[in-house]
Amino acid sequence: MKKTYLLLVLSLCAISATYAQDSARYTDATSFMLIGKGLPTNKPYVRLDTVQTEKFPQAVKYLSTNSAGVAVLFETNSKFIKVKWSVSHTPYHSNMTPIVHSGLDLYGKKDGKWVWAGVGRPVNKLDAESVIVNNMDSSLKQFMLYAPTYNALTALEIGVAPEATIRIPSKPGIDTTTRIVMYGSSIMQGASASRPGMAYPAIIARHTGWDVVNLGFSGAGKMEFAVAEVLATMKASIFVLDCMPNPTLDEIKERGYPFIKHLLTKRPEVPVLLVESAIYESGNFDQRIADVVRKKNALLTEIYTKLKQEGFKQLHYLSAKGLIGEDHEGATDGVHLNDIGFQRQAKKVQSAVQSLVKKSGGSK
Amino acid sequence: MKKTYLLLVLSLCAISATYAQDSARYTDATSFMLIGKGLPTNKPYVRLDTVQTEKFPQAVKYLSTNSAGVAVLFETNSKFIKVKWSVSHTPYHSNMTPIVHSGLDLYGKKDGKWVWAGVGRPVNKLDAESVIVNNMDSSLKQFMLYAPTYNALTALEIGVAPEATIRIPSKPGIDTTTRIVMYGSSIMQGASASRPGMAYPAIIARHTGWDVVNLGFSGAGKMEFAVAEVLATMKASIFVLDCMPNPTLDEIKERGYPFIKHLLTKRPEVPVLLVESAIYESGNFDQRIADVVRKKNALLTEIYTKLKQEGFKQLHYLSAKGLIGEDHEGATDGVHLNDIGFQRQAKKVQSAVQSLVKKSGGSK
Repeated sequence: MKKTYLLLVLSLCAISATYAQDSARYTDATSFMLIGKGLPTNKPYVRLDTVQTEKFPQAVKYLSTNSAGVAVLFETNSKFIKVKWSVSHTPYHSNMTPIVHSGLDLYGKKDGKWVWAGVGRPVNKLDAESVIVNNMDSSLKQFMLYAPTYNALTALEIGVAPEATIRIPSKPGIDTTTRIVMYGSSIMQGASASRPGMAYPAIIARHTGWDVVNLGFSGAGKMEFAVAEVLATMKASIFVLDCMPNPTLDEIKERGYPFIKHLLTKRPEVPVLLVESAIYESGNFDQRIADVVRKKNALLTEIYTKLKQEGFKQLHYLSAKGLIGEDHEGATDGVHLNDIGFQRQAKKVQSAVQSLVKKSGGSK
Repeated sequence: MKKTYLLLVLSLCAISATYAQDSARYTDATSFMLIGKGLPTNKPYVRLDTVQTEKFPQAVKYLSTNSAGVAVLFETNSKFIKVKWSVSHTPYHSNMTPIVHSGLDLYGKKDGKWVWAGVGRPVNKLDAESVIVNNMDSSLKQFMLYAPTYNALTALEIGVAPEATIRIPSKPGIDTTTRIVMYGSSIMQGASASRPGMAYPAIIARHTGWDVVNLGFSGAGKMEFAVAEVLATMKASIFVLDCMPNPTLDEIKERGYPFIKHLLTKRPEVPVLLVESAIYESGNFDQRIADVVRKKNALLTEIYTKLKQEGFKQLHYLSAKGLIGEDHEGATDGVHLNDIGFQRQAKKVQSAVQSLVKKSGGSK
């Protein structure tokens, strides 16, 4: 039985292509361009360094090492792209693919758009290597390689044909002078997209061509004041706060107003978009769950109204209505979005963000 | 670090709800109604028994034990539904969630529609238990519980409140007199849906209310004549053949015509729908992959044309055009569909199937 199973796994892998075992020349990915970072850090693929998270709760400190939203931009004319990468642990998440929590996700620029190109498949070990794409034509192309969303990428090398060019892109396809800084929950971090590039901040980055910083902290986007203080130091064209799933009702009451007000007062030139939590699909039959989400959203409305009355014109609000669709199929486990939910939420949030960044005059 | 990680996993799980630890009365699920089965079997949750697969290749024999598409129908007025279940192995698939390969997926009937209700989360062990939904009202409701897609369900018990009713549904919500028998590849089997109910045959079952038999065999839907012989013995309102990803070009040439002709001649009253393979997204940059898929589809067209010329009026054809959309985001790993791709493919195939089953006068 075991042998049969192994054969099946192999044939499942082999379905996509037979890859040539060409030799490759590897370059450390830090030689190229990194996007999706709120602040410069010493370790390249963490979201924040320990010195920046010093005052954060332990969970947020830890999650700041996860590489969600971080991506490497490069250009190459190689016929193939291979990767070798290392992560900090081998998690088991019942609601996630190993590709989204520990794998890599590649997009290439084609006819002016970012088009999906391939994934780096993890193998349930700390170190992995993978042929992401093969048999390409020899034109020089721009690529964007997303890091794992729920793991800490600790090393990454990109391999190309020995004779090929690989370098920092001359036209990166992401305009880092316009930057969306997003703060939120596990959903924003990427649970339960099928691959790193389907987390909704990543979808928005590809569609707008702007730099999007993913500060989703799984279960830990609880609006501590220390987090607002660090957010306020980041270069941003807009702040998007989509963290309602994480704090309790009491935590929202206590922390919501000072957290948001700090951003508004410290950065009067930057629009702030508050996003309600989508009503969980786990509340389709459970009568209590929907009630809690509605109460959280009502508290957010109260805080928004109070701050608007205080005159903060740069504050904006996005309702949960239609955020993940109406067919109840937008989540994997009732809370964490599948790719259907992410595509829908990306569309709604992107539309709001684009109108606000344009109104406010673009990049900061 | 490990402790922190454990805490995070726990908080990730706790996000959806705090479930009461109520005591439950468990009933073996074989007491209720089973759907999604092509033939009666001795073991309840396999797709085919060893006696039926005797002439099949080893891989198809093994995969016939996987429970893809099998579901349990029951009705209850319990405020909660718990499950205990066992599977045959603990696989690691980089492109699948543990929920889709080894978990359970519950839908409830609400306002005449099947609406998602909850999942049974596996725990990387052979035995698991889970509270699928809680805090429901006390009305009698119909439920459909999907088995794992890439594992063999070997035992299943459903737990309800001690005083609650649980029984075979009086109005099951699935009309087993109309039955779609589908034969195909890993994609049909359910890779890479986020949960069992998002495999496209399951989506079609919920939307049509018909019984859909999922005979997708991962990497092994290679059109052996022995498989056609068994298919031809099944009660069917329509046969859907969507296996092009698996056989090689030579295998299609050799096996395609006799396989399809056997079904057509043995079952002249049953429409047969041939479905082209969607062009793999892994061919977006890889110049060879798309070419192979196009050649396979061209061979399928040839066989279709030949059989139509021979006068088989019940034979029909669905092109790959638009099958999984045009935005290149419908797959997890370039081949296996994510929920976006499955929702799109379900819509196209369902539309074709509905017109054919209606034309042919309904159930057989």
